[in-house]
Amino acid sequence: MSADSSNLMEALVSLAKRRGFIYQSSEIYGGLNGFFDYGPLGVELKRNIRDCWWRDMVQRRDDIVGLETSIIMHPKVWEASGHVAGFTDPLVDCKVSKQRYRADQLFWAAVIIDGETDRQIVDSLTAKGRISPEVMARWLHLPRERTETVGTKEARENWVANRTMVYGFVSALESERTHTDLQEQAEAFKRKWGLQGTLRTVQPYDFTEAKEDEIPYIPSPATGLPGSLTPPRAFNMMFETNVGAMRDASSVAYLRPETAQGMFVDFKNVVDTTRVKLPFGLAQIGKSFRNEITPRNFIFRSREFEQMEMEYFIHPDADWLACHEEWLQWCQDWLKSIGLPASHLSLHEHPKEKLAFYSRRTVDIMFKYPFGVQELWGIAARSDYDLQQHQKCSGVPQVYFDEATKSKVVPHVIEPAVGVDRIFLAVLAAGYAVEDVKDEKGNVEQRTVLRLSPRLAPVKVAVLPLLKNKEQLTARARALHAKLRRRYAVQYDDGGAIGKRYRRQDEAGTPWCVTIDFETIEQPGDTFTLRERDSMQQRRITEAELFALLEEQVY
Amino acid sequence: MSADSSNLMEALVSLAKRRGFIYQSSEIYGGLNGFFDYGPLGVELKRNIRDCWWRDMVQRRDDIVGLETSIIMHPKVWEASGHVAGFTDPLVDCKVSKQRYRADQLFWAAVIIDGETDRQIVDSLTAKGRISPEVMARWLHLPRERTETVGTKEARENWVANRTMVYGFVSALESERTHTDLQEQAEAFKRKWGLQGTLRTVQPYDFTEAKEDEIPYIPSPATGLPGSLTPPRAFNMMFETNVGAMRDASSVAYLRPETAQGMFVDFKNVVDTTRVKLPFGLAQIGKSFRNEITPRNFIFRSREFEQMEMEYFIHPDADWLACHEEWLQWCQDWLKSIGLPASHLSLHEHPKEKLAFYSRRTVDIMFKYPFGVQELWGIAARSDYDLQQHQKCSGVPQVYFDEATKSKVVPHVIEPAVGVDRIFLAVLAAGYAVEDVKDEKGNVEQRTVLRLSPRLAPVKVAVLPLLKNKEQLTARARALHAKLRRRYAVQYDDGGAIGKRYRRQDEAGTPWCVTIDFETIEQPGDTFTLRERDSMQQRRITEAELFALLEEQVY
Repeated sequence: MSADSSNLMEALVSLAKRRGFIYQSSEIYGGLNGFFDYGPLGVELKRNIRDCWWRDMVQRRDDIVGLETSIIMHPKVWEASGHVAGFTDPLVDCKVSKQRYRADQLFWAAVIIDGETDRQIVDSLTAKGRISPEVMARWLHLPRERTETVGTKEARENWVANRTMVYGFVSALESERTHTDLQEQAEAFKRKWGLQGTLRTVQPYDFTEAKEDEIPYIPSPATGLPGSLTPPRAFNMMFETNVGAMRDASSVAYLRPETAQGMFVDFKNVVDTTRVKLPFGLAQIGKSFRNEITPRNFIFRSREFEQMEMEYFIHPDADWLACHEEWLQWCQDWLKSIGLPASHLSLHEHPKEKLAFYSRRTVDIMFKYPFGVQELWGIAARSDYDLQQHQKCSGVPQVYFDEATKSKVVPHVIEPAVGVDRIFLAVLAAGYAVEDVKDEKGNVEQRTVLRLSPRLAPVKVAVLPLLKNKEQLTARARALHAKLRRRYAVQYDDGGAIGKRYRRQDEAGTPWCVTIDFETIEQPGDTFTLRERDSMQQRRITEAELFALLEEQVY
Repeated sequence: MSADSSNLMEALVSLAKRRGFIYQSSEIYGGLNGFFDYGPLGVELKRNIRDCWWRDMVQRRDDIVGLETSIIMHPKVWEASGHVAGFTDPLVDCKVSKQRYRADQLFWAAVIIDGETDRQIVDSLTAKGRISPEVMARWLHLPRERTETVGTKEARENWVANRTMVYGFVSALESERTHTDLQEQAEAFKRKWGLQGTLRTVQPYDFTEAKEDEIPYIPSPATGLPGSLTPPRAFNMMFETNVGAMRDASSVAYLRPETAQGMFVDFKNVVDTTRVKLPFGLAQIGKSFRNEITPRNFIFRSREFEQMEMEYFIHPDADWLACHEEWLQWCQDWLKSIGLPASHLSLHEHPKEKLAFYSRRTVDIMFKYPFGVQELWGIAARSDYDLQQHQKCSGVPQVYFDEATKSKVVPHVIEPAVGVDRIFLAVLAAGYAVEDVKDEKGNVEQRTVLRLSPRLAPVKVAVLPLLKNKEQLTARARALHAKLRRRYAVQYDDGGAIGKRYRRQDEAGTPWCVTIDFETIEQPGDTFTLRERDSMQQRRITEAELFALLEEQVY
């Protein structure tokens, strides 16, 4: 992460806490890693994200209906879906520090030096357990797998002549500067052992690529010493619990790691009890849980999070690619409609060879977060895999009767899956700015502003009487406030100078402030000053115009 | 449960399934006891319950802000709150059948017969393990604790003269007919053992009242034989899981059994990061989990459910009783505002001696469910117990700075806590009716109608073109439908006779149907037929009038 990006993340986390968007869960007890609470402003923003999605996805479409399935489902659901067997991350233990790492986030590299070999140092290193003659020999023996960096003719000759030597390994956790970390550690290694010659540029591998006989020589990032890391083992990320008064294998159940399976398991119920016709979608918003080994990047990768998933069922003979493209477009358009700039969005097509065997295509909509470009919304063409699996495992036919062909079919599915918290973080990151602005007297000052779409803003309008102690102003302001809040989330604020109140609302993302001033009560027309957050422009507006503006912008 | 009530419950469960309100969770895998899914109509009704509460509780009040805290919190939260130690139900095992029962739902009674005692039968019963001489002697020895039924002079004399005898025990699970069950079993007992004399009316006790030496002689409801029931033990109802890659005592965490603690744990954060002033409330909607031993009554007592809780913080010197009364009133008014009839609501004041030591008062708003009058909304005056506990356990002062007295205070709290699913079931039960109505030709037919408040109804308006194949009608209907659904959940339905479509909407609780008919397209004024669900009255209405009606009724 660059200094700027890191500063932006810090600023966001700080703003989120300071203004009551996001708190660390159980903070008074030292917090709980990977869990977060949403404060008074945060909960409104989160609600608005959910509501916008639901209205656009379910309410405003004819072909999609909603669902809310339970978080704890029958454990067989997760056997059928493949999660019990395969929803794992590779986990590495450090036996000394008791730290645990995700193997694919733990990087290591060999310390390779060109020059005359000091046999004494080599012996000393092997004696101290920094490397074994066998591993050394394998790294030095040509041809071998990892020769990309020693492929030149000169290198080959050095290698063969044993003037190039592997002295040991270094390690570092994944970050924006993993490579630099490893290089610096290799240099430190060289200095520490008084090695002569030229250190090669390190070539990082992740820990899943370590061979069994190399693992004992890769240092633990916690201690800097080798010998304590275990080989990676599969760690299932589903949270486990027990349902009922027994606590044994028969009572094991899981917190769902995704909401999607709920739509598959209820597919038949919906087909049987509603009037849906192919193609149709089932949409759900709800909490999911993943026992991440290393939760990180604030609310981006947490252990408890909220998903908005939709399964769009299509006829097996339908043009799935066209449908996939349509949803890809819909999702991008939707993200823009809630205010995410196109400049921050990009697409990542999953390479064919990395797709699961049943998957036809997956494209992720990526967002430029402060910590890098990361997945925001995955749009997957999953064929009929899930329904077929549940049909097989439950013995209940997962079919739809197609009137046109008078035949039963198992539909295929397109799945757009997005996280509420990831959208939350994206709109915060994209909307946050610190600007130089001029105050009433022309002095330059800084303002922090959150440019949230009016659809998402926690507070739509702040109603401000110019003066707190002028009853005519406050009465009119109270009346307007009462009328507005029947329909909208609004705030009444009479505390402090008007400029200070504007700043407070800018930072909360409130798109409009309405000031009830002397013109309101003394001039005809009953107009207020409408102050717009982004342009900071002010104009007169009537109550009817204000409601029309809200009706148009907040939907 | 009376036959009528039992029929009503069956009808509700059946309607809920048939129309896609509620499905059993994981139904294709045989279901999971105590877990439910909400289908397409159900999810909209549930959303509306939540939204109405949120708008009235948070958005339309100046003194309450929202919160969404994580379901998994730091385990110390639940130590401080007392849940780890005390959130238990008394559990009884039947060692033979492996069934488990809540001790307070398992009832038993002694079989007491007046008349000459047959010593041979007594010996046979003791030999067969149906009762011991010691227990028998204790029941027969006066004075004793359980003498209410043998308190008459005649009974005393019989007792003393040994002409009244206790021959054994019978048991039954709690239901509307527990007492009858026990009486019938006692009669069967008398017949089976050929006992002469007069059987007394049984006196039921629950299993928590059984003495240690009586337990071996109380039959298991599963087998009808004594000897297999264990003494009650405390069973903690919190679902347990492990967070992180370790699975040991240090990683144990719980799914929250209530949302309330989230408000206490974040109290200080909200005070520090927002502009709340005492008195103020923190409100939250979210899932909670309780590992009920015997989930029952459909969604009334399930293992995964959704709560709407609010903690209203007041100054320690404030008039807590007046505040408690206000909230009691507010909650009752709110229930009526979403359409629950006053006739179904009542109050239950918790007796002083049953309150926790810190509790000043608890009153439940009760609802007349088909299975009995049960708790819907609890309004508790909890003093400052929770904040004091968290202050003690976390070491972080849980204080509010009172500007008036320039002093730090730990506020007291009034807590109204209600379940979304319980409201859901209440509005279904109160709104459901089967009526005789006349069709267009004057023939009497039956209609099923769900009288849901317009605020709660999953579909607000059904837009019906009189004919499906008349383009002028369908175009106008489509246009109206599109305009309505920008703001409201509406449905377009062109399938079948108009009367049939009305019935379909009646059953879904849709308050209004709008029919686009020939008058719409042939007469001036662009009016539609508005058909009202409850009265079934029809009248002409313009688009503007329709929107005004919705604006007034749906908020």
